[in-house]
Amino acid sequence: MNTALSRLLNHRLFEPVIMALIIFNAIILALETSPTIMAFAGPLILALDKIVLGIFVVEIILRMFHDFRGFWRDPWRIFDFLVVAIAIVPTTGALSALRAFRILRVLRLVSAVPQMRRVVAGLLTALPGMGSIVALLGLIFFVFSVISTKLLGEAFPEWFGSLGASAYTLFQVMTLESWSMGIVRPVMEIFPMAWLLFVPFIILTAFAVLNLFIGVIVDAMQSENAENAHDEREAMKNESAAILEEVRALRAELAALKADR
Amino acid sequence: MNTALSRLLNHRLFEPVIMALIIFNAIILALETSPTIMAFAGPLILALDKIVLGIFVVEIILRMFHDFRGFWRDPWRIFDFLVVAIAIVPTTGALSALRAFRILRVLRLVSAVPQMRRVVAGLLTALPGMGSIVALLGLIFFVFSVISTKLLGEAFPEWFGSLGASAYTLFQVMTLESWSMGIVRPVMEIFPMAWLLFVPFIILTAFAVLNLFIGVIVDAMQSENAENAHDEREAMKNESAAILEEVRALRAELAALKADR
Amino acid sequence: MNTALSRLLNHRLFEPVIMALIIFNAIILALETSPTIMAFAGPLILALDKIVLGIFVVEIILRMFHDFRGFWRDPWRIFDFLVVAIAIVPTTGALSALRAFRILRVLRLVSAVPQMRRVVAGLLTALPGMGSIVALLGLIFFVFSVISTKLLGEAFPEWFGSLGASAYTLFQVMTLESWSMGIVRPVMEIFPMAWLLFVPFIILTAFAVLNLFIGVIVDAMQSENAENAHDEREAMKNESAAILEEVRALRAELAALKADR
Amino acid sequence: MNTALSRLLNHRLFEPVIMALIIFNAIILALETSPTIMAFAGPLILALDKIVLGIFVVEIILRMFHDFRGFWRDPWRIFDFLVVAIAIVPTTGALSALRAFRILRVLRLVSAVPQMRRVVAGLLTALPGMGSIVALLGLIFFVFSVISTKLLGEAFPEWFGSLGASAYTLFQVMTLESWSMGIVRPVMEIFPMAWLLFVPFIILTAFAVLNLFIGVIVDAMQSENAENAHDEREAMKNESAAILEEVRALRAELAALKADR
Repeated sequence: MNTALSRLLNHRLFEPVIMALIIFNAIILALETSPTIMAFAGPLILALDKIVLGIFVVEIILRMFHDFRGFWRDPWRIFDFLVVAIAIVPTTGALSALRAFRILRVLRLVSAVPQMRRVVAGLLTALPGMGSIVALLGLIFFVFSVISTKLLGEAFPEWFGSLGASAYTLFQVMTLESWSMGIVRPVMEIFPMAWLLFVPFIILTAFAVLNLFIGVIVDAMQSENAENAHDEREAMKNESAAILEEVRALRAELAALKADR
Repeated sequence: MNTALSRLLNHRLFEPVIMALIIFNAIILALETSPTIMAFAGPLILALDKIVLGIFVVEIILRMFHDFRGFWRDPWRIFDFLVVAIAIVPTTGALSALRAFRILRVLRLVSAVPQMRRVVAGLLTALPGMGSIVALLGLIFFVFSVISTKLLGEAFPEWFGSLGASAYTLFQVMTLESWSMGIVRPVMEIFPMAWLLFVPFIILTAFAVLNLFIGVIVDAMQSENAENAHDEREAMKNESAAILEEVRALRAELAALKADR
Repeated sequence: MNTALSRLLNHRLFEPVIMALIIFNAIILALETSPTIMAFAGPLILALDKIVLGIFVVEIILRMFHDFRGFWRDPWRIFDFLVVAIAIVPTTGALSALRAFRILRVLRLVSAVPQMRRVVAGLLTALPGMGSIVALLGLIFFVFSVISTKLLGEAFPEWFGSLGASAYTLFQVMTLESWSMGIVRPVMEIFPMAWLLFVPFIILTAFAVLNLFIGVIVDAMQSENAENAHDEREAMKNESAAILEEVRALRAELAALKADR
Repeated sequence: MNTALSRLLNHRLFEPVIMALIIFNAIILALETSPTIMAFAGPLILALDKIVLGIFVVEIILRMFHDFRGFWRDPWRIFDFLVVAIAIVPTTGALSALRAFRILRVLRLVSAVPQMRRVVAGLLTALPGMGSIVALLGLIFFVFSVISTKLLGEAFPEWFGSLGASAYTLFQVMTLESWSMGIVRPVMEIFPMAWLLFVPFIILTAFAVLNLFIGVIVDAMQSENAENAHDEREAMKNESAAILEEVRALRAELAALKADR
């Protein structure tokens, strides 16, 4: 039976059919957002959604059945499992908001299309190199959040009332959205020196984010260059080796000539 | 007759005259936007516009007549054809807005000036490399549009009432325009956890756009470097080859010397 | 007398004294912006400003007198001349706003400090490479200004009433400042399809500006790399030449040996 | 006793304990921002804060005692000293705001974690290269501040009333925050030509900031490349040297052969 299963999973039409189903499911979930369409064909759409979901569940169970260990070792399979699992979790009461996240199933497209998988893998490899600077950025956020909560929390509870509110407001300031007209100018009407807190914060975070970007750029460049340079280096090594070999052969011949005499 | 036509199209004054007409047409179309000038010299301006348009139509017909296949194979010629065709399409009723797009004719300047053509061609060559990441960005937009429409659509119909409205609002959020004071803070008054949707969206899209940029930068750099490196590589290959040749000649001479004896 | 003048202009204290005067002048002009200080010591400050200006005028006349041709060939001297000239032009009536521009004299600091001069020269060398893409950006602005003036001018005279108003609004949209909440959303209330004009405009200009930046980055990198690569290339050429010379000498000796026999 | 002290400071648990205390202190200071938690456990939290602070003071005194000169030569130790000193300074009256800055103690995490120290050191090394362009940016700010204070100060005292207010407003304009809808459009209602001041300012500062970034990018790239190139260069030099040696040996043998005869 496992051979039949293996033949099914490796059938040349299996992947395209799954991909078509993902796209079909995306269209269905998009249609669900329209009240007029739902009023007209709601039951049909919900039924189609359930059918596609059923096929996905069966597919994932078959994959698991076929190679249980391999399934849990492949991060893309785990990803598929999670985005499908969201749809099966009972979504009543407090978790009803999860229903909206069923659309995450569409992200299976990423795991199904090799190019997409490569792009996402590329993005993820850039992350570890960012570690230290993200930690530094986090520390800057923490320090400025505590300071602004303590200094401005009482006067501006909506913006700086708690650590979380301050962190959100500082994130907004970092993105430069309405930082002056919306936040700092009103604050300066009560605390005229508030700019001493926010202008350095903006410069610091801009500088940190810039260095985050530069790290990614330099990394991307480096890996590209390293590859090219390596090929070139090899070619040059071969040329040098060819010359060296020739000279050594010459020397051997000369030694032979000498011995000959 | 075709020789006469060929002589005309290849005349050294033909291109400059067409370019002058394009610029003249640009000025006319700019003047048309001023009500005071139109009140004063409206009929003259409209007549001049029609004359220039007529010349363009004749030019394009001549070019087509001269080399029909070549015309439809050159994307710049097709571009010229389209921007001129917009002006001839009857612009009544629903299509009257098309009248404003007659100014697109000025874009013929791009196809007429070689440097501009090269810049645009350069920009276009950067596009295919962006494919996967633009698709990923599109997927992120689709997923977040569906989620925000479902969760926030009822409470904020103007911003998230439909998939299109959500996509537009998310585009605004991606450009960071009023994302917090204008959109997310009002939304958080009803859904306090809304930042869990938008802050990750901002970070995700910023990261994706950053990688889009990096791809273009690395590509541009790569092609520059590759060119330089190639010339250098050739020079080094020649040097190595010269040494190798010399050593081989030496070895041949030594062999001859040996045989000689 | 010219020798005395030459000795004065090349005196090792001349440049520092001028630089000190520029900074002193900057302080004076900064103080002039404060009404309280002007009420207290206005006449003194104005007198000091006139004295410093007088010294600058004398300095420039002396420099001109010393080497008239050299003066007008050095762009930095012409720059000095212009920023000092602004202060002497009678500033009455329509030109009274020019008085505020006397502060431009402080820019003499750029021409007086070699490092600053180098930075500005570096920035200026980046400009020619930007030519084509700035022209393209200008064309995009022109086309979109005409279209938006024609389509939206009547309904939104403040933003799109004339070509100039449209160009300014589009510049604001390009910088992403309030483009959606401030401009496009109000416009969309009357013209629901207006986003079809502005979203492509934002993407187009962002892409063009990105390429402007990339051009500058690649140029800066290229010139740095070229320098390094050149030194390296020379070293490698010398090594290859040394080997080749050695082999040739060897070959000559072998030939001599052969002839010897 | 100094050996006992040395043994303590170099104990393999000393650094981790201090780091744990820093993190513990960060949590305490974060809790202090919450009024509900302070109402419930205020005295305990304040006591814990004082104990941790006491340990830090003792630690720094011990370090100073152990190697007084080394302490004042290591910038990280001076940094530790300063952030701890802030907490001991009596914070009454005018200095009470300093209490909020006790959180800066958390920044000891940077000096305690080697990776963080390296990132910060990396950021700091980028600064000197920025010197000239930051000075130029400062000059641009100064000139535009004086001009806008003089021209617009009277009409818009809140934004351009003094040099400081103008500099802050220009910083806001540079970050593009509400520059047009918030500042320049209202200004243009009184001074229609005000865009002639602000649009060039935006382009100038954007260009200067771009060049600041490019400088950092090129520097980061350069230092990466230089390292790689150096290794490669060495390998190539060795190959060339090997060939040269071989050829010279050959030549010497030939000379020996010749002399032999």
